[in-house]
Amino acid sequence: MIATWSDAATLRHALAFEAALAEAQAEVGLIDADAAHRIAETARRLELPAEALAEEAALAGTLAIPLVRRLRDAVGGDGASVHLGATSQDVADTVMVLQSWRAVDLLCADGDRIAAALAPLARRYAAFPAMGRTLLQDAMPIGLGLRIAQWHAGIAEALAHLRAARAQLGIQLGGAVGSRSGLGGHGKAVASRVADTLELPVSAPWHARRTRVAGLAAALGILIGATGKMARDVALLAQHAIGEMREPAIPGRGGSSAMAHKRNPTGCQVALAAATRAPGLVAAMLTAMTAEEERGLGGWQAEASLLADLALLASGALAAMVTVVEGLDINEAVIAGNLEAARMGSDIGESVALVEQLLKENG
Amino acid sequence: MIATWSDAATLRHALAFEAALAEAQAEVGLIDADAAHRIAETARRLELPAEALAEEAALAGTLAIPLVRRLRDAVGGDGASVHLGATSQDVADTVMVLQSWRAVDLLCADGDRIAAALAPLARRYAAFPAMGRTLLQDAMPIGLGLRIAQWHAGIAEALAHLRAARAQLGIQLGGAVGSRSGLGGHGKAVASRVADTLELPVSAPWHARRTRVAGLAAALGILIGATGKMARDVALLAQHAIGEMREPAIPGRGGSSAMAHKRNPTGCQVALAAATRAPGLVAAMLTAMTAEEERGLGGWQAEASLLADLALLASGALAAMVTVVEGLDINEAVIAGNLEAARMGSDIGESVALVEQLLKENG
Amino acid sequence: MIATWSDAATLRHALAFEAALAEAQAEVGLIDADAAHRIAETARRLELPAEALAEEAALAGTLAIPLVRRLRDAVGGDGASVHLGATSQDVADTVMVLQSWRAVDLLCADGDRIAAALAPLARRYAAFPAMGRTLLQDAMPIGLGLRIAQWHAGIAEALAHLRAARAQLGIQLGGAVGSRSGLGGHGKAVASRVADTLELPVSAPWHARRTRVAGLAAALGILIGATGKMARDVALLAQHAIGEMREPAIPGRGGSSAMAHKRNPTGCQVALAAATRAPGLVAAMLTAMTAEEERGLGGWQAEASLLADLALLASGALAAMVTVVEGLDINEAVIAGNLEAARMGSDIGESVALVEQLLKENG
Amino acid sequence: MIATWSDAATLRHALAFEAALAEAQAEVGLIDADAAHRIAETARRLELPAEALAEEAALAGTLAIPLVRRLRDAVGGDGASVHLGATSQDVADTVMVLQSWRAVDLLCADGDRIAAALAPLARRYAAFPAMGRTLLQDAMPIGLGLRIAQWHAGIAEALAHLRAARAQLGIQLGGAVGSRSGLGGHGKAVASRVADTLELPVSAPWHARRTRVAGLAAALGILIGATGKMARDVALLAQHAIGEMREPAIPGRGGSSAMAHKRNPTGCQVALAAATRAPGLVAAMLTAMTAEEERGLGGWQAEASLLADLALLASGALAAMVTVVEGLDINEAVIAGNLEAARMGSDIGESVALVEQLLKENG
Repeated sequence: MIATWSDAATLRHALAFEAALAEAQAEVGLIDADAAHRIAETARRLELPAEALAEEAALAGTLAIPLVRRLRDAVGGDGASVHLGATSQDVADTVMVLQSWRAVDLLCADGDRIAAALAPLARRYAAFPAMGRTLLQDAMPIGLGLRIAQWHAGIAEALAHLRAARAQLGIQLGGAVGSRSGLGGHGKAVASRVADTLELPVSAPWHARRTRVAGLAAALGILIGATGKMARDVALLAQHAIGEMREPAIPGRGGSSAMAHKRNPTGCQVALAAATRAPGLVAAMLTAMTAEEERGLGGWQAEASLLADLALLASGALAAMVTVVEGLDINEAVIAGNLEAARMGSDIGESVALVEQLLKENG
Repeated sequence: MIATWSDAATLRHALAFEAALAEAQAEVGLIDADAAHRIAETARRLELPAEALAEEAALAGTLAIPLVRRLRDAVGGDGASVHLGATSQDVADTVMVLQSWRAVDLLCADGDRIAAALAPLARRYAAFPAMGRTLLQDAMPIGLGLRIAQWHAGIAEALAHLRAARAQLGIQLGGAVGSRSGLGGHGKAVASRVADTLELPVSAPWHARRTRVAGLAAALGILIGATGKMARDVALLAQHAIGEMREPAIPGRGGSSAMAHKRNPTGCQVALAAATRAPGLVAAMLTAMTAEEERGLGGWQAEASLLADLALLASGALAAMVTVVEGLDINEAVIAGNLEAARMGSDIGESVALVEQLLKENG
Repeated sequence: MIATWSDAATLRHALAFEAALAEAQAEVGLIDADAAHRIAETARRLELPAEALAEEAALAGTLAIPLVRRLRDAVGGDGASVHLGATSQDVADTVMVLQSWRAVDLLCADGDRIAAALAPLARRYAAFPAMGRTLLQDAMPIGLGLRIAQWHAGIAEALAHLRAARAQLGIQLGGAVGSRSGLGGHGKAVASRVADTLELPVSAPWHARRTRVAGLAAALGILIGATGKMARDVALLAQHAIGEMREPAIPGRGGSSAMAHKRNPTGCQVALAAATRAPGLVAAMLTAMTAEEERGLGGWQAEASLLADLALLASGALAAMVTVVEGLDINEAVIAGNLEAARMGSDIGESVALVEQLLKENG
Repeated sequence: MIATWSDAATLRHALAFEAALAEAQAEVGLIDADAAHRIAETARRLELPAEALAEEAALAGTLAIPLVRRLRDAVGGDGASVHLGATSQDVADTVMVLQSWRAVDLLCADGDRIAAALAPLARRYAAFPAMGRTLLQDAMPIGLGLRIAQWHAGIAEALAHLRAARAQLGIQLGGAVGSRSGLGGHGKAVASRVADTLELPVSAPWHARRTRVAGLAAALGILIGATGKMARDVALLAQHAIGEMREPAIPGRGGSSAMAHKRNPTGCQVALAAATRAPGLVAAMLTAMTAEEERGLGGWQAEASLLADLALLASGALAAMVTVVEGLDINEAVIAGNLEAARMGSDIGESVALVEQLLKENG
């Protein structure tokens, strides 16, 4: 996930955009086929110095300016055909969308792995009575599997939401003011081909309409929240006085620099720290929506790092919880003992049926 | 919208839940049909003193306790059959969902009205050249209708997102710990009937799985953001030095207590103030997701007022912008003059086609 | 606290501002002394219909316009001398500052009451060994009083911070654009007298400089956080499996509509719900800081309700925790037993000295 | 600023903490003087591989564990005296405080530079009439210097607030549970000496009392807001239709990849993007305050990166605005022309006196 949002990936995606653009423009006859070929080939093999570019971009206020200049220089004679009819934000947004698509792939892989670990656990413990707790108080028995199926449903719903949000994100190609004015009337065809090459949905320009990226950010925030909920439960159940679950014992993990007897819920800590940070990042994405006129000032420029932060937090949280749930240390004897001590019987209601229903709905 | 979230509406919905529950339980044979009839009838005509209930609820920590007690008293002999197998959060969440469904109806009505006002404007001005502006600088011409079609698309996308988020919200009926333990094995049937009566989707219990309400909050935040974007544009275009658009002149509105010559963008102010407040409310909803075990402490209890605040802000923002867009004062001469003065020609690219595409995609 | 921010209080403060302004202007000779007397007297006894005013204010975009009109009407012949040289925001901001000062008085009273309850508890239990817990794991013994002294220090620091933030908030009096242009060169003297009458600090105009109100909001957020920290601890210690502390038993409080055996941490719930909501409100205040030019659009107009929400949440949280700490049910036997069971001895380090140090530093 | 929060700086500060701790413990006789000398010397010259440490820390859940292990290995025979009586959070928090102190130094340097550039501008233009604008509408004249003096006051107040917040941040030294249990009764003396060596204030342990770091975060957020306010004004005044100010022309900056004629407000963009992101980061810090018992899980672990992000955003915003204000391109003729065209005269009220008052109050 770090690689997905690295400067190197950003540059590679930006060059891929310029390559796809040139090829698409050649297909509709806007630029010469040879020139397009040279541009595309150059762009796909060009190695740009990430640090120098970052400095130039900071000075210019946008990455596209120095990147296009260097690409034009590398292309040589046909350089004028580079970036034709495009604007900096076309590059920046399409790169962000490419990165978002990759990021969601990674997140779904981890999320699906969590779901795959939880589903059999939920079934296995569907009828196993455990103390249910509400408002941090012992309440009444549940089937332990029901709690696990609820975690599963939360993750599964959040992943479905995330996939739906991603599906709406297509390329950006609007030119200077979003009217596709420099594309000789071929804008729709060019956009369609660029999208095909980049394997992204095509989209009308959305320079100042940030509804969909805000939707992606919200979906990431919700995924982190669903992960944090599971982490909070595990951490609470791992308290010594309760002792019903623990994170797996992993060499080098969860120790204390002062107390050797502890097994700290380190994976849960990662997920909960992510859940502490994510809501504010989503809020910033929503704040950025009120973009000025055809391209905002100070709003959308904050988005790429917000999405990157959210994706990294989600990734860290999910990876941590993959480890936790795949090796979850469930202490059946303690669970039974805690319930026994409370003398509440073991009526778990319709836990078993609900486990099946939840798993089926989120299959 | 204020009525939707009023204490009176809350009480009415809570009693409707208890009525529907009793009737459903009678149908499956859990309680006596006559008792159910008496409970339902009593619940539907009971007038509860909102202020006294609010105080009792604050003391009890939940509305359901004093409400159920008063309903039982009113029912008399069959009172023990009231609220059978249900828990406070079943009432609270189902009420919140009922209010959310009503709220979305109202918001969609206003949102659709904005869309209905914008679509013809976008078409009418599709080919009308206007200065496009990026980063608060004059950039290049666009078709004025393209800007308007982008507003339209933003609102339409946000409304679609909102409807989808709402569709996932069903009743809450899980009992003490979410296992439907007090429903004699008829939980699914009871839930289904309660949902039918209340005209809501049925749902497995979700006491501590707040994914979907968080999704609704995010959708409300996005709608407010899309509305705020339009408001920011109108306010910027209404600056004296630009003068291309103004809010309609309305007696008593937009004046200044110190400067009689101003026509302040008062509708935009309402929408922008909403856009200032909403992101933090969405953040709080996401923070609330990490609910403890079978029922959280301090998280979900904050949600109803957060959703109410978001719905009220959205409603205020949309209503304000309905007025603005329905009477939008577009000064064609100034627009033409500003463009003329910049000597940029009037190449509006593919604005006309993009207007049609956007309107069609968001029809 | 609700009364402090009520519409009635807002109107009373707004009229008090107009009264003070007229009197101050008479003192420096700007308006006739008799007129000032009539204005002040009228303003101080005028009963305005809150609901009608709210509607007129919503239409006008500001409260001051209808309020000044009604006051002028009530004053009659000298009406033109009302609100002279002032602008709507002068009224709105000064009212908000008056309400903030009152609110901080109330919060400090409750906060000091919590501190007064905690200090003797901290001393009493300074040397009483209890299990210290880190990362939700049993760690090593502490003096129980040290935990309590830390709560005390958190509240005391937050209150000191709040008082300091309030001290910076003075009246607003800048006129149309913040230059005091309508005050005949007597602006400083008028401002000074208005401040004296309203018992507020005087201040240069700050229409678009929101640093200080943002500071107050942050201080409120921090106070709510410190209160929430204490609430989280009490709720965790009240878990059945730990059982070291409980909220006091209060008739009608903390019961469950489904489980009679529970004593829910209802006071903690209130404080934790406030801590869930407050951060987003503070974020919105910070977002509002980027006000446009001499008076922002959409930012500061959101502030009064944000401050009101924060003050109400703080008040609710503190009041709930006053009840909790004044009747805190500490189970010494359980604490001793839990520690005994862990076989960790009872070395509480320098807990006693630290208790004294913390209490002294926050005396 | 990037260096201040780099992994390298983190490691250097962590080792400095261990060195200071060993020396302090030798002074009070807790460990052997020779051992302390060896530890301190080793710690101060030890070069740790940042990347490997980061991975080990991610596994362990805290940096201190692998760092202390490597330091012990490097020290050899006296290794057992390393980190005596300290806990991971002692290291982490003290490092964060060291970084915060350095960060505030850097921010104040840039902030003071802005103030130093603004003060003479404010005086120079104190009596220069310019259009004052409210709610994005032309309002009435002000002295241009008054607007500038308000920017100055906002920055100066925010810097004062920031310095005050920093002054409260001292070292962390509490040991496993904050009771200084492993320091043989010499905790206070050891803490005092460690603080002296590190040139930080001494402080009672504050592991789970996050009031003061939350205060620092809020102060950073307010500084970013005050900077963003100035940026928004410059960007609005730089609109072509207004043209009263522009950012300085800098080769390579502010160009457009599509439109050569633009001079984009690139510095303002940086500051406004920071102002978009900061509020959510502050909100997350406030959310982290409700730490569990003697050391929270998931809250404080998020703080260091939140503070780093805030400091980096503040630094970027201030640096961008240093360039903007030091080279601010004020177009007097346009300002005069705009005012002339509005036929409002040039009564700037008490602008001159207010400029002096504001500068004096924030000297």
